[in-house]
Amino acid sequence: MTPDWIAVDWGTSNLRVWAMGPDGIRAEARSDDGMGRLARDQFEAALLALVSPWLGGGVVPVIVCGMAGSRQGWFEAPYRTVPCTPLDRAGLVRVPVQDARMAVYIAPGLKQTKPADVMRGEETQIAGALALHPAFDGVMCLPGTHSKWARISAGEVVSFQTYLTGELFALLSEQSVLRHGMAGKGWDDAAFDAGLADALSRPDRIGAQLFNLRAEGLIGDLPAARARARLSGLLIGVELAAAKPYWLGQVVTLIGADALCKSYARALRTQGVEARLLPATECSLAGLASLARQLEKTA
Amino acid sequence: MTPDWIAVDWGTSNLRVWAMGPDGIRAEARSDDGMGRLARDQFEAALLALVSPWLGGGVVPVIVCGMAGSRQGWFEAPYRTVPCTPLDRAGLVRVPVQDARMAVYIAPGLKQTKPADVMRGEETQIAGALALHPAFDGVMCLPGTHSKWARISAGEVVSFQTYLTGELFALLSEQSVLRHGMAGKGWDDAAFDAGLADALSRPDRIGAQLFNLRAEGLIGDLPAARARARLSGLLIGVELAAAKPYWLGQVVTLIGADALCKSYARALRTQGVEARLLPATECSLAGLASLARQLEKTA
Repeated sequence: MTPDWIAVDWGTSNLRVWAMGPDGIRAEARSDDGMGRLARDQFEAALLALVSPWLGGGVVPVIVCGMAGSRQGWFEAPYRTVPCTPLDRAGLVRVPVQDARMAVYIAPGLKQTKPADVMRGEETQIAGALALHPAFDGVMCLPGTHSKWARISAGEVVSFQTYLTGELFALLSEQSVLRHGMAGKGWDDAAFDAGLADALSRPDRIGAQLFNLRAEGLIGDLPAARARARLSGLLIGVELAAAKPYWLGQVVTLIGADALCKSYARALRTQGVEARLLPATECSLAGLASLARQLEKTA
Repeated sequence: MTPDWIAVDWGTSNLRVWAMGPDGIRAEARSDDGMGRLARDQFEAALLALVSPWLGGGVVPVIVCGMAGSRQGWFEAPYRTVPCTPLDRAGLVRVPVQDARMAVYIAPGLKQTKPADVMRGEETQIAGALALHPAFDGVMCLPGTHSKWARISAGEVVSFQTYLTGELFALLSEQSVLRHGMAGKGWDDAAFDAGLADALSRPDRIGAQLFNLRAEGLIGDLPAARARARLSGLLIGVELAAAKPYWLGQVVTLIGADALCKSYARALRTQGVEARLLPATECSLAGLASLARQLEKTA
């Protein structure tokens, strides 16, 4: 019953693990023991809390991607510098652990020197997308808390750019004065489209457009669902305005949560750009699996 | 010892009161009983906690400006609609109170129908600036949590526009991923200027510029003081880019906290625009005093 290896996606907020066998996923588990709430000496216990039922007599390789490899995480896996392949066995960092039933490796993120940029976790999804579509050449966008746009050529990440879009949406909709007009989870496509069009045509006016949402709520009774969708449209619009050199004239591959990717695809369609969606988890697992295969070869 | 009247500036976070006599301020007090932390039935007690030492035998007029007059505040003072004078005795709302030693009035804010916008508190500062400079005609900017730009002509607010700049700075520097690189209170003028120039020349790239601060901190060791100042420059730059129709070719009167107004003045100077600074408290008090005089005439 011992898995061939264990895949781990360890982000800032969540920890997800998969027991992998010759036919793929055998079992999975998750917890909210993200990197952000753990001290350095708590990582191994947090991991064992999920994977110990899977550990047996032998030593199981455990391959980790994400923020656990950051300086504030479990064990630093120094960034590799683009242009380079998204993942490479040589970059894996072996983490010292107490429990002899695990051999833990952390995959490093990528950095770009100029303009300065970093990613941790997305490189594994990009590697997975490339494993699933080996001939891929073009642009990938990974929407999320920190959206990434990446140019991929000949199996390498050539350049990338990060946007704070998802974090701005969370801060503005949950913690700013705008939250008063955005309770709930409602949505309105027309309001999203309107916000998107405003931001794409006049991205420089974003500062004024944001408070306008509050004012419309106070004196125009803007419904919460429309306000939320319009805020999303505004922020994605500002991102697309800046990322135009990435998507113009391209087919964009979107990797991320389904609903969010659909919003990005809808937004790109208004600019005449076609998008293809890849599920984030499948890409993460395919990326980690490519490392597992490389490890096995060199073992 | 009873004052002629009491001036109250009741914002979201703070409550400030002044005992006013024929020669101006006799005494002042403040607390953190802002509108945001009070239920409707707690306002009178919060006010009395500061002003009761000043109350004697007669009835003292208490004139309030700010968020206490909002729908979520003590007692709603419905917005007046621009174009109009910033304050008018006819707009004052009398608040029912238990303590017979006070006659409490709240000044309404202003609203603009299209584009939708609102202000509460700043109208009193504008009225005060006009009381101090009756011949004023031109543009006022009130930097703060929600910066306001207003066109003033013939004693009326003709139009105005609000920017979320101060709130964005607080959220990004204290609660977003950027906070890791911004501890402390340091400052760096050159970094402010660089952020400002970047945002003014390419305001549409703000989404990418923000994460760049994080990446520079991680891989370029950007010092916290430079990161904070650069963030401020970026956000003020995006505001100025959008507010250009307000300031282009004008002399701008800045009303607000001294350090923040100096940053705005510095920013405007890079665009060849001269700024004059007026202290915020002096303006608030002059605005409330103009109401006190009108009340006295109609009493």
